[in-house]
Amino acid sequence: MSTDTTPDTDTSTGTSTDTDTDASTESKCGASTPDTADAGASTESKCGASSTDEKEVGSTVEDFDAEPGRLVAVGLGPGQPEGMTQRAQTALGEVEHIVGYTTYIDLIPDEITEDADDIYSTPMCGEVSRTEEAIDRALAGNDVGIVGSGDPNVYALAGLALEILESKGGTASMVDFEVVPGVPAAQSCAARLGAPLVNDTVSISLSDHLTPMPEIESRLHAVAGEGFTIAIYNPWSRKRRENFQKCCEILLNHRDPETPVGVVHGAGREDEATEIVELGDLEELGETDLIDMTTTILVGTGDTYVWDDRMVTPRGYESKYDY
Amino acid sequence: MSTDTTPDTDTSTGTSTDTDTDASTESKCGASTPDTADAGASTESKCGASSTDEKEVGSTVEDFDAEPGRLVAVGLGPGQPEGMTQRAQTALGEVEHIVGYTTYIDLIPDEITEDADDIYSTPMCGEVSRTEEAIDRALAGNDVGIVGSGDPNVYALAGLALEILESKGGTASMVDFEVVPGVPAAQSCAARLGAPLVNDTVSISLSDHLTPMPEIESRLHAVAGEGFTIAIYNPWSRKRRENFQKCCEILLNHRDPETPVGVVHGAGREDEATEIVELGDLEELGETDLIDMTTTILVGTGDTYVWDDRMVTPRGYESKYDY
Repeated sequence: MSTDTTPDTDTSTGTSTDTDTDASTESKCGASTPDTADAGASTESKCGASSTDEKEVGSTVEDFDAEPGRLVAVGLGPGQPEGMTQRAQTALGEVEHIVGYTTYIDLIPDEITEDADDIYSTPMCGEVSRTEEAIDRALAGNDVGIVGSGDPNVYALAGLALEILESKGGTASMVDFEVVPGVPAAQSCAARLGAPLVNDTVSISLSDHLTPMPEIESRLHAVAGEGFTIAIYNPWSRKRRENFQKCCEILLNHRDPETPVGVVHGAGREDEATEIVELGDLEELGETDLIDMTTTILVGTGDTYVWDDRMVTPRGYESKYDY
Repeated sequence: MSTDTTPDTDTSTGTSTDTDTDASTESKCGASTPDTADAGASTESKCGASSTDEKEVGSTVEDFDAEPGRLVAVGLGPGQPEGMTQRAQTALGEVEHIVGYTTYIDLIPDEITEDADDIYSTPMCGEVSRTEEAIDRALAGNDVGIVGSGDPNVYALAGLALEILESKGGTASMVDFEVVPGVPAAQSCAARLGAPLVNDTVSISLSDHLTPMPEIESRLHAVAGEGFTIAIYNPWSRKRRENFQKCCEILLNHRDPETPVGVVHGAGREDEATEIVELGDLEELGETDLIDMTTTILVGTGDTYVWDDRMVTPRGYESKYDY
């Protein structure tokens, strides 16, 4: 799932949409000792991305009397309901509370969200506080689903949820923690391009919010020099243009400028756009609408070619068979 | 999808299961000039893995008079019907013929297979001939779905289908070629382990049937020396033990022997088994039932740890927040 918080986006407080008559905007976690650091109770930005203050964990397991409920992290896939697995739909139908970034909550079919007791959604920032909120609600006795696009193990909250649980003195077993996989962006974007990935492949994020850029550059050098197809997540943002430029430079260091590159912007959204370009032309596209935070870029290998508007990375059979 | 043909498996001819009264075992492709190389018509092994003969493509677009039907490559995900996306189910419900490896065909819900006009399934080998069969049927005017586990862009047939179409003188547009993504094995196995992947990740196959081992080794060295979590596909087979041993050796060359490694055997099958071990103990597990062709191995980074029986690779927030 892509839940990356980026420094250059707006921040807002959390919104709790209760499908019952109680329309309070306060945290529903039921903690007996509300703390100003509790997600949703404060109007401060929970984005964290623009703040360097240490934030204390709000509640710990000692603050709850109830038998904990379940916590399930659900990958929604590319976006539209049709992209959800049967298991994801079932899992969300079985929980009482659903927590997530507003855009992803909106992607869930109405029949599922209407069935939940409570929906807690926040806009762009707030990944940490949102996950804390979900965990607090589970510790308070509710069955909770936390959602994101793609898959929970792809730049997403499976790891964050477990880390926060631990810091609260809880365990994964306590909330019967479960991960429901979904289709990652690399594969859903690849499907739009034909067969760009196919063999050994790498996913790299250009977001240096949590990983220093020198490490990212080192990784790019390592894989660009080998026969990996490369899926680039979070390629660009207004404050990180130079990361994208550096990435293009490194790729060209190892691969031909004619190497096919698939660019998928806003997959699953109304402004979705897909293009196949050449590696040598990629950098200048960074200044167009095609490449922004919603874009996934798939870089071919020396064997990749473009045919009938599709990107094709061969399996390798053609050297064995004349088919 | 995993459709890798391995040399050390049994080979058999294709079987066409007609849900109508016509129970012929011949190819249903309708080509007007059957060739002994046509999939299904010959009793020779179509596996190809054990043969070094060049095989001619059977039919080309000139052999067909009909308006071509559609061809859709569908990823079934991890295996059980609940792991299929809504879109995958819909796509298979809309085709007339479904083609695939027998084990994957068996995973499709009965209500979908019973609705199809024809099911063409073959055992382990025959990936190339099976894909040719599917394309011939589409060129003959049928709407055809070709299936595999996982996702069509992960060691699977999206690329193969496009290559074969081209060799037959066809185009992707001619058959309205579509790829329906599914959950890859790396992510569905990761879900069973907790949060092992999370950040930049790599998928590498140890099958050297189509990629020379020296290249695979070079790729392993490149990524093991960087902070990638690594998903290893096709880690072991009776004839390729040394590939697995070499892989373990290379990983230990770069990573601590205490590095957590998740091993998922037979995901989605009755004999499914999941274990978290240490990298230093991985090689000897190659001689146990845990590691075979149905196993996916997920290697952690220097930051990965084991907690409450889950593998956790941190997102990186813990250096910024005290949560």
